[in-house]
Amino acid sequence: MNKLVKNAAGRMIPEIINGDKAIPFKGVGKHIPERKKFAPKIPSNIFYPADGNKQINNIKEALIKSGIRDGMTISTHHHFRNGDLIANLVFDIAHELGIKDLRWFPSASFPCHEHLIRHLENGTISHIEGSMNGPLGRFCSEGKMKKTAVLRSHGGRYQAIQDGEVQIDIAVIGAACADPFGNANGLNGSSASGLLGFALADSQYADKVIVVTDNLVQFPCVPWQIQGNYVDFVVEVEKVGIPEKIVSGTTEITKSPDRLLIAEMTAKFCEITDIIHDGFSFQAGAGGTALSISIFFAEIMRKKGIKARFARGGSNKYLVQMLEEGLIEYILDGQTFDLAGVESMKNNPNHVWTSPFTSYNYHSKGNFAGMVDVVILGATEVDLNFNANVVTHSDGYLLHGLGGWQNCLFSKTVILPIPLFRDRIPVIVDDVTTLCGPGELIDVIVTERGIAINPLRKDLIEKTKNSTLPLKTLKELKAEAERICGKPENPKLSENIVAAIKWVDGTVIDIVKQVKNED
Amino acid sequence: MNKLVKNAAGRMIPEIINGDKAIPFKGVGKHIPERKKFAPKIPSNIFYPADGNKQINNIKEALIKSGIRDGMTISTHHHFRNGDLIANLVFDIAHELGIKDLRWFPSASFPCHEHLIRHLENGTISHIEGSMNGPLGRFCSEGKMKKTAVLRSHGGRYQAIQDGEVQIDIAVIGAACADPFGNANGLNGSSASGLLGFALADSQYADKVIVVTDNLVQFPCVPWQIQGNYVDFVVEVEKVGIPEKIVSGTTEITKSPDRLLIAEMTAKFCEITDIIHDGFSFQAGAGGTALSISIFFAEIMRKKGIKARFARGGSNKYLVQMLEEGLIEYILDGQTFDLAGVESMKNNPNHVWTSPFTSYNYHSKGNFAGMVDVVILGATEVDLNFNANVVTHSDGYLLHGLGGWQNCLFSKTVILPIPLFRDRIPVIVDDVTTLCGPGELIDVIVTERGIAINPLRKDLIEKTKNSTLPLKTLKELKAEAERICGKPENPKLSENIVAAIKWVDGTVIDIVKQVKNED
Repeated sequence: MNKLVKNAAGRMIPEIINGDKAIPFKGVGKHIPERKKFAPKIPSNIFYPADGNKQINNIKEALIKSGIRDGMTISTHHHFRNGDLIANLVFDIAHELGIKDLRWFPSASFPCHEHLIRHLENGTISHIEGSMNGPLGRFCSEGKMKKTAVLRSHGGRYQAIQDGEVQIDIAVIGAACADPFGNANGLNGSSASGLLGFALADSQYADKVIVVTDNLVQFPCVPWQIQGNYVDFVVEVEKVGIPEKIVSGTTEITKSPDRLLIAEMTAKFCEITDIIHDGFSFQAGAGGTALSISIFFAEIMRKKGIKARFARGGSNKYLVQMLEEGLIEYILDGQTFDLAGVESMKNNPNHVWTSPFTSYNYHSKGNFAGMVDVVILGATEVDLNFNANVVTHSDGYLLHGLGGWQNCLFSKTVILPIPLFRDRIPVIVDDVTTLCGPGELIDVIVTERGIAINPLRKDLIEKTKNSTLPLKTLKELKAEAERICGKPENPKLSENIVAAIKWVDGTVIDIVKQVKNED
Repeated sequence: MNKLVKNAAGRMIPEIINGDKAIPFKGVGKHIPERKKFAPKIPSNIFYPADGNKQINNIKEALIKSGIRDGMTISTHHHFRNGDLIANLVFDIAHELGIKDLRWFPSASFPCHEHLIRHLENGTISHIEGSMNGPLGRFCSEGKMKKTAVLRSHGGRYQAIQDGEVQIDIAVIGAACADPFGNANGLNGSSASGLLGFALADSQYADKVIVVTDNLVQFPCVPWQIQGNYVDFVVEVEKVGIPEKIVSGTTEITKSPDRLLIAEMTAKFCEITDIIHDGFSFQAGAGGTALSISIFFAEIMRKKGIKARFARGGSNKYLVQMLEEGLIEYILDGQTFDLAGVESMKNNPNHVWTSPFTSYNYHSKGNFAGMVDVVILGATEVDLNFNANVVTHSDGYLLHGLGGWQNCLFSKTVILPIPLFRDRIPVIVDDVTTLCGPGELIDVIVTERGIAINPLRKDLIEKTKNSTLPLKTLKELKAEAERICGKPENPKLSENIVAAIKWVDGTVIDIVKQVKNED
């Protein structure tokens, strides 16, 4: 049996995960990498077409020429979000070829990938290492995956590839636009998703790289977000994604009065503490509450006559409007959530594409996260020490990915605006079901019934002490929720470990246990 | 004594160069790299400022913090061309610190670096690995350098760094614009040189990276041609370069009737052979003859009503005019030779910056060179088998660098427009003083007295056979030159090897011997 050890956060984690030695979380900023980056084989132009044309007939041929075989690691990416058509196709082909035990290494999975449950069941895919949203997370939670899932943040995924923790055999990169050499972008064409940053590490480090597009243009495909010099094969297909599911175009601000209140309180907090100052920077995100916060920020900035030096994306029409109005000098964008974002990125040189390398990789000589003045994030649970969970619900089900959440915790101020309870289940708990982010990095919790500041942030406490803000302790907020909803039940979990949660440095911060069958 | 072995081109090369085993040239496309790419140490954000501010006081402090010590490899770059102020300063400081035996690894050196001869003499610098133009080449030719110089093409320099043949301890990257995180570009500021592509490999693979700028801006410096995530220290100085020497602004077409004739014949050749066709691509270069050729190309394109898909830079005002006129869809640029080039790259999204990685690296999954329909290059000597020399003169002196010359030989058609003689010394010779490019890759020699087509290019011979072009053999052209100038004398060389010439795959294609003192 796999021995468990206690990590620095007090969580019990296995010594071995999927056959590899796991490094327990040692604390924030404590793990020093002692190795060298992963070194891919040196390629040579000798083995590539002299005229640069790497086009071949179809994905099946590309997979065969890439040497697909049992046990390999195949990566795909979530640029097309819930409109992705590639991942399902790749594993249908693998199944048809009789390949077994593939590790799927997506940058994230979406409900559209529920299709792959059949290949998890029939043995084509052994397990998933990547953020899971929805059905696949549920499948995993119920202990049906052959091996242990591994979840990483966007930055952690780059780190894992760069450091050789995950060696990708075949990366399949879907692109809205590409040329026969393999240069590709996500900007031009009917499947435009904005950018291809989540595939950057794959292109640099994977053994074989396949670019798939439904918009093949003559060399050069400009701009090249993926460089053809890293690409082995290019395949043209009729359709790489379902446009209306790639960018919904329906991102709207919240209409819930509670959520609007939370958004307004968050903005007010940032105003009173001077976090909103001339030349500041922020990252909000794409949920309804986050969008509302951007709008409140804009109002404050107009009132004060100041502007932000930059905002981090995920971008949307509200952020683009702020850029165009001159309230923001630059959008540094990781993904575009609507068509306004795609168009802006395409046409506005101040709407800049970034990647998990520039923004989030912890094993680099610094990244952008630390330079952001304030970041607004979500959470499913928070404990009294500000430790937070973002992947499991209080019933134990793994239903969300980490995204850039862990990486953003390194920003100067981290605020979690969250409702005090959801479906009558309190959000502030004694012990988070899954630890995703250490409390020392989380500064402020904003709820509809009060704001709690982390005692570590004496500066923020000082700045707000004579304000009208409804400041409370987490203990007070928790008691208030429990008065209304009652004390929540603990999730019913078995001892079977179904997933591991990596920290930004590749260490294991927690695990997820199988949810016990109700019968 | 160092044993010599004959390489596949019949040149005798040493088994060991500066203590490392040398791989003899094996023929074009024959050397298969069996190793892995160089793997830098994994860095961690832990060791970099949380707020991203890596600025320190001065270059001396940066060199000391980078751990400068005897025998290290220090790289600098030629983005500022003859206006560079950094390389001299770096080695002045190293000398002041009493450091010895540094290997200087510039992307190229210019006459302004004559200053460094003192540090070659006083032992601060042991030798140079990089293209040498002028005084340093002369110093090297006279056998005064402590170790053997090594010359590489732009692509070969990327390859050598990527493959770990040259491990850079400290890269010092001068930039017209940078932010305190280390993001940098060559576009904005009084020292604007266009781009920073020659420093790309250094940023990715060097142990320590120092960015030096005279135009420090608030984060983010956009666009970032060098990514701050690779940078250790940022230094602000008063002046990184002398603007009027960075871009001369005086690039002019040739006025020599002979050169104009050669240019016109070259263009005519490309017209008759349909090399100039709708959607074609070309690379000319920046010399007077090359500029004239671009102008003749433009005339033909206007006449035919066609346009080029792309032109490769070095860009200049003539190429920019063609882009703006719509004769060229894209300029894929490696360096900007005048202010018009810099401005265009800054403002025109179809004027795209490239790097030695995208354009030239032979140890990648293909590069841009092979996709160029025709490339126009220079040469100091050509032999009867189309083998060419571009680094030494017929008197044996090493006076030029390789630049992208070897890399461009992989284009679909390679044309060398050269005068039949220079200063009464014939250019077509029995045996080139230094072999830089194998004749099998060189297709056409255009001289003022006739055009010679490589017998391997039966297609071009066929297409021109009934034309009015003055077709001759190299033998005929050589005889003609010798009738006028007499048979040239062989250079007077000693047996001492002063420099090695690398081929694009890291093998040694030839060496340069010391010029014998005349007394």
